[in-house]
Amino acid sequence: MATTYAANIDTIRQAAERLAGRLHRTPLASCQTIDKRAGRQLLLKCENQQKVGAFKFRGATNAVTLLSDEQAEQGVVTHSSGNHAQALALAARSRGIPAHIVMPENAPSVKREAVEGYGAEVILCEATLVARETTAQSVVERTGAQFIHPYNNPHIIAGQGTCGLEILEEAPQLDGLIVPVGGGGLLSGICLAARAIHPEIRLFAAEPAGADDAAQSMAAGELIPQTNPQTIADGLLTSLGDLTWPIIRDHVEQVITVDDNQIIEAMRLLWERAKLVVEPSGAVGVAAALSPTFRSLTGLDQVGVVLTGGNVNLDQLPW
Amino acid sequence: MATTYAANIDTIRQAAERLAGRLHRTPLASCQTIDKRAGRQLLLKCENQQKVGAFKFRGATNAVTLLSDEQAEQGVVTHSSGNHAQALALAARSRGIPAHIVMPENAPSVKREAVEGYGAEVILCEATLVARETTAQSVVERTGAQFIHPYNNPHIIAGQGTCGLEILEEAPQLDGLIVPVGGGGLLSGICLAARAIHPEIRLFAAEPAGADDAAQSMAAGELIPQTNPQTIADGLLTSLGDLTWPIIRDHVEQVITVDDNQIIEAMRLLWERAKLVVEPSGAVGVAAALSPTFRSLTGLDQVGVVLTGGNVNLDQLPW
Repeated sequence: MATTYAANIDTIRQAAERLAGRLHRTPLASCQTIDKRAGRQLLLKCENQQKVGAFKFRGATNAVTLLSDEQAEQGVVTHSSGNHAQALALAARSRGIPAHIVMPENAPSVKREAVEGYGAEVILCEATLVARETTAQSVVERTGAQFIHPYNNPHIIAGQGTCGLEILEEAPQLDGLIVPVGGGGLLSGICLAARAIHPEIRLFAAEPAGADDAAQSMAAGELIPQTNPQTIADGLLTSLGDLTWPIIRDHVEQVITVDDNQIIEAMRLLWERAKLVVEPSGAVGVAAALSPTFRSLTGLDQVGVVLTGGNVNLDQLPW
Repeated sequence: MATTYAANIDTIRQAAERLAGRLHRTPLASCQTIDKRAGRQLLLKCENQQKVGAFKFRGATNAVTLLSDEQAEQGVVTHSSGNHAQALALAARSRGIPAHIVMPENAPSVKREAVEGYGAEVILCEATLVARETTAQSVVERTGAQFIHPYNNPHIIAGQGTCGLEILEEAPQLDGLIVPVGGGGLLSGICLAARAIHPEIRLFAAEPAGADDAAQSMAAGELIPQTNPQTIADGLLTSLGDLTWPIIRDHVEQVITVDDNQIIEAMRLLWERAKLVVEPSGAVGVAAALSPTFRSLTGLDQVGVVLTGGNVNLDQLPW
């Protein structure tokens, strides 16, 4: 069955070898105050401290490294105003190839400047998915660049899966994992890695209630795209893809949804007590761990939670 | 000569054994953006992630543990509105003994509540050093509690020195260390530990320009008390003590002073790029590392910097 997925433990282990020395080995942190509120021990995988401030650098680097020299010469392109944009820009610069990033014209200037700071070309377009996709397509036609999808790409999924390898190498005793889900690249990669290493591990997704396509898809048993997402967790607005959905469907025990107040509370707790700068999307896993739903589950003494990113504007905090 | 100091490598190693399992083993973090600005590699000792959010828990726990049962029964007392207050309160609670904390009546309620949250009794007094000392003295007379000075105490110095042991166990190759200085408990303890393990290591103090008694004392060759300190680094307002000064005088190569703008810039850089919540006093070491004075020094390829604490009010940030 695993052979039908877009990635597997072998492609993930190969990605880990490929990425060795090019990533930060992020710490697994713990915080007694948060543990007390969660009612169990949590180990926090600090991908907020990954290069570019988010796990996205894993997949982007894997995908860029796997391009042939002929492909690489033409550069890469994606549409994103978030962490994937910065990650792809830095991964491309590390290989010395061009990166073209399509961003909506209403993206904050700080995000545009961050991408440009990594040497990428920014192409602005209207703030609609159609405009983003057609603009990216026109860049592909103009430049011959490879389109690197932020999550629905086998190399991206395998790259994000290396995060799961690291967690279980350091903490093989974990009973479960909680991973935030947007498009599902990180969640699906971690599912494949964790289940291969630890077949009994229990896998949970954490999702904003205002962008709950994963919860809806799991309830319906089929992929239901996200429409009109409304949440502070701006990294989790996207729909699952046809490559990530089957992996999530088959491996995730439950999707825990949390509202924006729960997300902000978890974020603030991480800042105040764990002393970690985590963005709203990055705090969704801890928000799920603190929810009554998750607290009521038994047999989960020690649970890993991925803090997916830490890129926030310090002048616009949600409190 | 070393025998004349209030602590030494043996009392520091004994403190480390005593504290084993009761502290967080805080990570040594690194950040390429900060390294680039510093012009060298920095390893950041994350005492902002220590219990109670500051290195102070080391010394307080050592001092409380070393009380005889007879002494301990009467409890402990100190005057502090900062991290030592919380540290002593938690250390006392861990031993199951009373803690009395004298705080100025203008201390922020959030600090008072934190201390009370650890089960300590808070005694308010006028916001003068004389009032704090006389009030603490009256608590000693009323309760028989042991007065635990925040830094001018051999057990505190030895306890803080364990931070230096950890840094050099993990990174014995360091060429130098930068440690913020207020009363000098942490700096003096780390000086003794580091010089004993690594006789050639170069030791630097980082100090706010608006509370520069250490710099003035080093220049004069004698202890010059701090008067009227003015800095955002509210953990570094105090004067050196007669136990910490001789150690600093004999071991510190240079005191690097930084103004509040440099402190705030370093603090923000730590939040934005290292994703670490560090309070102003805790960022003074990085501010020193980024200063033209320190950047101009040669022969310091890799330097450890202590991030001393991370207790900030998230509703009152200095930007």
